[in-house]
Amino acid sequence: MSNSRSSAIRNAPDRVREADQPRSPFIVFEADRPLKLDAGVELAPFQIAYQTYGTLNAARSNAVLLCHALTGDQHVANIHPVTGKPGWWESMVGPGRPIDTDRYFIICPNVIGGCMGSSGPSSTNPATGHPWGLDFPVITIRDMVRAQAMLLDHLGVDQLFSIAGGSMGGMQVLQWCTTYPDRVFSALPLATATRHSAQNIAFHEVGRQAVMADPEWRQGRYIFEGTEPRRGLAVARMGAHITYLSDAALHRKFGRRFQDRSNPTFSFEADFEVENYLRHQGSTFVERFDANSYLYLTRAMDYFDLAADYDGVVAKAFKGTSTRFCVISFTSDWLFPTSDSRAIVHALNAGGARVSFAEIETDKGHDAFLLDEPELLAIVRGFLESAGRARGLTTAQD
Amino acid sequence: MSNSRSSAIRNAPDRVREADQPRSPFIVFEADRPLKLDAGVELAPFQIAYQTYGTLNAARSNAVLLCHALTGDQHVANIHPVTGKPGWWESMVGPGRPIDTDRYFIICPNVIGGCMGSSGPSSTNPATGHPWGLDFPVITIRDMVRAQAMLLDHLGVDQLFSIAGGSMGGMQVLQWCTTYPDRVFSALPLATATRHSAQNIAFHEVGRQAVMADPEWRQGRYIFEGTEPRRGLAVARMGAHITYLSDAALHRKFGRRFQDRSNPTFSFEADFEVENYLRHQGSTFVERFDANSYLYLTRAMDYFDLAADYDGVVAKAFKGTSTRFCVISFTSDWLFPTSDSRAIVHALNAGGARVSFAEIETDKGHDAFLLDEPELLAIVRGFLESAGRARGLTTAQD
Repeated sequence: MSNSRSSAIRNAPDRVREADQPRSPFIVFEADRPLKLDAGVELAPFQIAYQTYGTLNAARSNAVLLCHALTGDQHVANIHPVTGKPGWWESMVGPGRPIDTDRYFIICPNVIGGCMGSSGPSSTNPATGHPWGLDFPVITIRDMVRAQAMLLDHLGVDQLFSIAGGSMGGMQVLQWCTTYPDRVFSALPLATATRHSAQNIAFHEVGRQAVMADPEWRQGRYIFEGTEPRRGLAVARMGAHITYLSDAALHRKFGRRFQDRSNPTFSFEADFEVENYLRHQGSTFVERFDANSYLYLTRAMDYFDLAADYDGVVAKAFKGTSTRFCVISFTSDWLFPTSDSRAIVHALNAGGARVSFAEIETDKGHDAFLLDEPELLAIVRGFLESAGRARGLTTAQD
Repeated sequence: MSNSRSSAIRNAPDRVREADQPRSPFIVFEADRPLKLDAGVELAPFQIAYQTYGTLNAARSNAVLLCHALTGDQHVANIHPVTGKPGWWESMVGPGRPIDTDRYFIICPNVIGGCMGSSGPSSTNPATGHPWGLDFPVITIRDMVRAQAMLLDHLGVDQLFSIAGGSMGGMQVLQWCTTYPDRVFSALPLATATRHSAQNIAFHEVGRQAVMADPEWRQGRYIFEGTEPRRGLAVARMGAHITYLSDAALHRKFGRRFQDRSNPTFSFEADFEVENYLRHQGSTFVERFDANSYLYLTRAMDYFDLAADYDGVVAKAFKGTSTRFCVISFTSDWLFPTSDSRAIVHALNAGGARVSFAEIETDKGHDAFLLDEPELLAIVRGFLESAGRARGLTTAQD
């Protein structure tokens, strides 16, 4: 069965099965425990799929929540059940790694709106028996965080020793620290911002328009109608992927080299290696990701604006916080540039928070937070060890 | 008839008519004067549509060639016959303007591969009587320039007093100065580069994929089949448009303001002003531009690599040139950043050329070269006046 489910082309039943019965632990919150959404409606029943690694200690003081980015999921440090590939943060998470599965109890939930087992547009709508599609309510970063808090309640974790995430994951980190400040001992927002910029909203809108322009999208009813907006989603992914890298990284990896030849073909084939690479990124992405989830999660990022609930002043969101912060940015990240991270640091400073900040020199762009960057790994390790001493953690058996 | 041709929605016959019988002067080169293309084939017959402004002086020494960018055309300084809008460089070109129609004889051709009357994929293929579509040969920047040289021969212009253009227009300027160095007295390459970067190729490829993913594209046969890849081309334009601006300009113009309301709609409508602006950019573009031309012209830009013909050394391309250069870049242009212009300047210096260079401080991004930027206008005016003195030009009657 596992074989048939990880075949090259996933069909609609595969997607719905992973959404409803994911190959990871999941918890169903029944109608008596609805998720109150910012849109003003309640989602019930709903479910959250998650992975855990390591062991919760007796004092329940070593839990670390990892928040995934736009196209990530709960499979941080295990072979992915759909793609067969390693987890998305294996360089960071594992035995002896900076986020050490021998020391910490690590929880990574799939976000609400995702497509790997937490309720989202490809999940079955209990009211109809069909996939939600666009009837799924539009969700926000805060909705994701509220659902995660319910998961932690279920797992018996009152306070997180730490929380970490990059990009959309970093938005969740910041939201956690303002919505539930007493539940977060330390926090690592990476390559993120307190609000999405106009340029980032613009890039997301192009991606959404690419999906919605695909006639196979069928107003979001494609699973129900047996179609798939593969080309639209692939175009969206290709465009987004450029923004995750840097000009320098693309130049270093591909330059202007031609694909499998030394001269141009004078055609519209993928002449340059970089074109071939992008097409590959597009076509593999559509195998693992749901087009409607892409709409919902980009929308949630666009709506994110931490200051909006605090009279436009981010510093107020962090006033009096006792959480220890480590903010990290990357020099070549032009999607969430260092200036965004500096704004977080300034707000934290103004709010009286304990904060350290590192800008890491790299040409790898926004995606650097996911990669095997020695300085990133060293900083995260050092920050968590220091925070662990402050929290009184010494071994996994504490 | 003019009214019916500038109606809101242009249909296929409108497009073919403008391509074959443009509302500007045009010249047809018959079978005895083919255009030799880099692809190794000859294009014949073919035509070039163009506009001229001002008067060629008796000495034939005051001609200025303007090269348009990707989505531009020959209508530099007149009401556009399709859109009804002003020309694309009215701030720069006109009586008393820096490129002064009272002093210079200004020629602006539509590029080969375009859609406003020079031979391109929406023109009628004389061999079949139907639009060329993808049977039109893939063209290069050098092919555009070869065709322009034939137009100048026809107009009786041996040497250009000056040549100017930004972006793809700047590529043509640089190509002119290496292919026909003796025919160019002075040159203004603006916001351009000697080769397209991997990131720029990547962005173009996403745009092409967006067009080709549209089922209405019909393998490029949409005019013949009576369809139109409007949504695909609009998505391509939306994505490209972001790259023409800057994060700062988008922030200044739109920030995170909601469209016609103060709160999010929790939907996939155009909630933010920047989304609405982009959708508008996409939908107006498809009225005036041909989707296949978009494929051909982006491809020509991607192929552009001036060094490729000179053992990979750009400086060799300019060795011994007597042309006077003025290279201009803009601080917030991240598509053709100042480092690209510096590379041009270094190559020109190494080649012994006479060159001045200005980096203009602006937050308007790549599109700044098209806009009413006082410093840009002043520098172009000053450079042309100085070059005019060197050339012995004093009035339009020289």
